[in-house]
Amino acid sequence: MKTIIGIIGAANASEEEKKISEEVGVLIARRKCFLLCGGMGGVMEAACRGAKSAGGTTIGILPGTKPSCVNSFVDIPIVTGMGEARNVIVAKSSHSIIAVGGSFGTLSEISFALKSEIPVIGLDTWDVSKKIIKSTNPEEAVEIAFELSSLREKTG
Amino acid sequence: MKTIIGIIGAANASEEEKKISEEVGVLIARRKCFLLCGGMGGVMEAACRGAKSAGGTTIGILPGTKPSCVNSFVDIPIVTGMGEARNVIVAKSSHSIIAVGGSFGTLSEISFALKSEIPVIGLDTWDVSKKIIKSTNPEEAVEIAFELSSLREKTG
Amino acid sequence: MKTIIGIIGAANASEEEKKISEEVGVLIARRKCFLLCGGMGGVMEAACRGAKSAGGTTIGILPGTKPSCVNSFVDIPIVTGMGEARNVIVAKSSHSIIAVGGSFGTLSEISFALKSEIPVIGLDTWDVSKKIIKSTNPEEAVEIAFELSSLREKTG
Amino acid sequence: MKTIIGIIGAANASEEEKKISEEVGVLIARRKCFLLCGGMGGVMEAACRGAKSAGGTTIGILPGTKPSCVNSFVDIPIVTGMGEARNVIVAKSSHSIIAVGGSFGTLSEISFALKSEIPVIGLDTWDVSKKIIKSTNPEEAVEIAFELSSLREKTG
Repeated sequence: MKTIIGIIGAANASEEEKKISEEVGVLIARRKCFLLCGGMGGVMEAACRGAKSAGGTTIGILPGTKPSCVNSFVDIPIVTGMGEARNVIVAKSSHSIIAVGGSFGTLSEISFALKSEIPVIGLDTWDVSKKIIKSTNPEEAVEIAFELSSLREKTG
Repeated sequence: MKTIIGIIGAANASEEEKKISEEVGVLIARRKCFLLCGGMGGVMEAACRGAKSAGGTTIGILPGTKPSCVNSFVDIPIVTGMGEARNVIVAKSSHSIIAVGGSFGTLSEISFALKSEIPVIGLDTWDVSKKIIKSTNPEEAVEIAFELSSLREKTG
Repeated sequence: MKTIIGIIGAANASEEEKKISEEVGVLIARRKCFLLCGGMGGVMEAACRGAKSAGGTTIGILPGTKPSCVNSFVDIPIVTGMGEARNVIVAKSSHSIIAVGGSFGTLSEISFALKSEIPVIGLDTWDVSKKIIKSTNPEEAVEIAFELSSLREKTG
Repeated sequence: MKTIIGIIGAANASEEEKKISEEVGVLIARRKCFLLCGGMGGVMEAACRGAKSAGGTTIGILPGTKPSCVNSFVDIPIVTGMGEARNVIVAKSSHSIIAVGGSFGTLSEISFALKSEIPVIGLDTWDVSKKIIKSTNPEEAVEIAFELSSLREKTG
C-alpha cells in the first residue's frame, strides 16, 4: 500500500500559498506517494496540479454530490455529498498531513488529525498545538511528512 | 421553535469544568432553551444533569450506534453512528455554543461553528480566534448565548 | 427517556399519503411519544402537522445546512449538512419506524433500520423483506410501533 | 479521469458469490477502470483480489477508523469512521455499480445509487426496481457497467 500524504488549506488561497502548494504537490509525487485533498480550488487545486505535473496520483474527497465539481487535476474523485463532514475523511485517510495557511475548515481538519494522532506539518498555518510540526519550506515539509508516514505505517 | 444552545467540552473534564458545565446547564434550562451536546460524559453529562435538575430538555448527538451509550440525563438521543463526524452536527444544530475547556474534538466543533457564523462563547477554552467571545462565568456566558441566539433567529 | 417513533416517506407524496401521515402524527402524539422524521415536506410535514395538532413534540433530521429549510411543524431541527447520509440517522435514532409509501430515499432508510434490527411498520410501502410488518391503517401501525418500541427498550 | 466501477455485496458472501466477484474484479481491471468498494471482506475482498491479479487499482471506502481494517487487496483505503453512512459514498463515487447478492447494506447502496441515477447492474441481487439491469454473468455485467459509465461521463 502506498503512502498517502494529505494537503489541506483554503480554497481562496493567496498566490504565495498556491505557489507553495504546487511545490508540495510536485514533491509528494516525486516521493511516489499518493496526494489526498478536499478536491476543490486554491491550495487543493495547486497541489494537485503540481502532483500531476510530476506524474503523481491525486485523490479528492469532495463535499458536494457531483463528481464534476472537482478541480481538473484530481484523478480519483470521492463523492461524499456530506459537506464539511468530509473534512473528517480528509484527515483520517492521510498518513500525514501538510497544512498550508487555511481558515476554519483547515482548522477542523487539523483538529481531527491531531485527535487521531496523525502527524501534521504546518507551513504558516494555525498555531494551536505543539504537536503541529512547523516547517518553513516545501522540501522540508514533504520530507518530514514522508518520514513520519513511514514510521506510522511500521508501528501502527 | 425554541432556542437551542449547544455546550461543548471534553468527556474527561476536570471537576471545576464539570461544576461550571452543570451551572451552564441549569441556566440554559431556566431560560427555557433546549440544551444540545454530544451526549457523552464529562462536560456533556454535567451540563445535561444541570439542565434536568432545572426542568429543561436535553438533546444528545451520539457518535456511536447504540442509543444506550448516552449519559443518563439526555432526553432525546440522536444516534448517528458516524463517530467524530457528529461534531459537525453538534455545531450546526446549535443557535449559539458555549465551550468549556476542551481538547481537539472541541476545537473541531469550534471550527465548524465559526465557519457557519454560529456564535461561540468561551469559558476558558481554545483561544484561536477573536470571534470567540470570552466569558468568565456561567451567568454571563448563558446570557450572551441567549441574546445572540435570538438575534440570529431574527436576522438569519 | 421517551419513546421515539420515526416516520419516513416521500417529500412529494400523494394527498392520500399525506392524509395517512397526518393521522399517524396525531396518534404518535397521543401516545406521548416523540415523532422523528427527515424534517422536509410531504409525508414528513403532514406527520409533524398532525403531531403538533395533538400537542406532540417533533424532531427533524435535516439534510441541508440551514435550520430555516425545515417544515413549519418541527420543534427540534437537527442540522446535519450531510445530504442523504442523514437517512442513516433518521433510521438509527428511531425506536421503531412507520413507512408511508416512499421512493429510493425511503428504501435506504428501511434498509438501515432493518440492518439495525429496528422494527419497520409499512403502510403501503416497499415490499422488500418479510421483516417489514405490513399494516393497513394508522391506528394499527402506531399501536404496533408503540408496542415494539417498548419491547425494544426493555430487551435492548 | 478514469472510469470508476463500484462493486457491492455482502461481507459474508457465499463461495459462488465470491467466485463471481473475483471475475468481476479481473474484468474491471482489464477494462483499465478503477474498482471501488466498501473495503471489507466477502464480495469486496474477492473483487479486489481479482482486480489486483489483473494489474488493476482498487479503492476501499472504509466504515471504521483504522486504515488497517481493510482487505489486503485495497490500494487506496479511504478512512471514513462513519459506519454505514459510508454506503452513501460508495454509491455516489461510482460511475456505475455491479451488485452481487447482498443484504440490507447492499440494498441501501442500491437505493442511493438509483436515487442519484447511477446505473446498477445486478448479478442475482435485490429485485426492487425495473431500473436495476439484471445480468447473468460477469462478462456481460462489466461490459454494461463500462458502457453506461462512459455514456454517463459524456452526457452528465
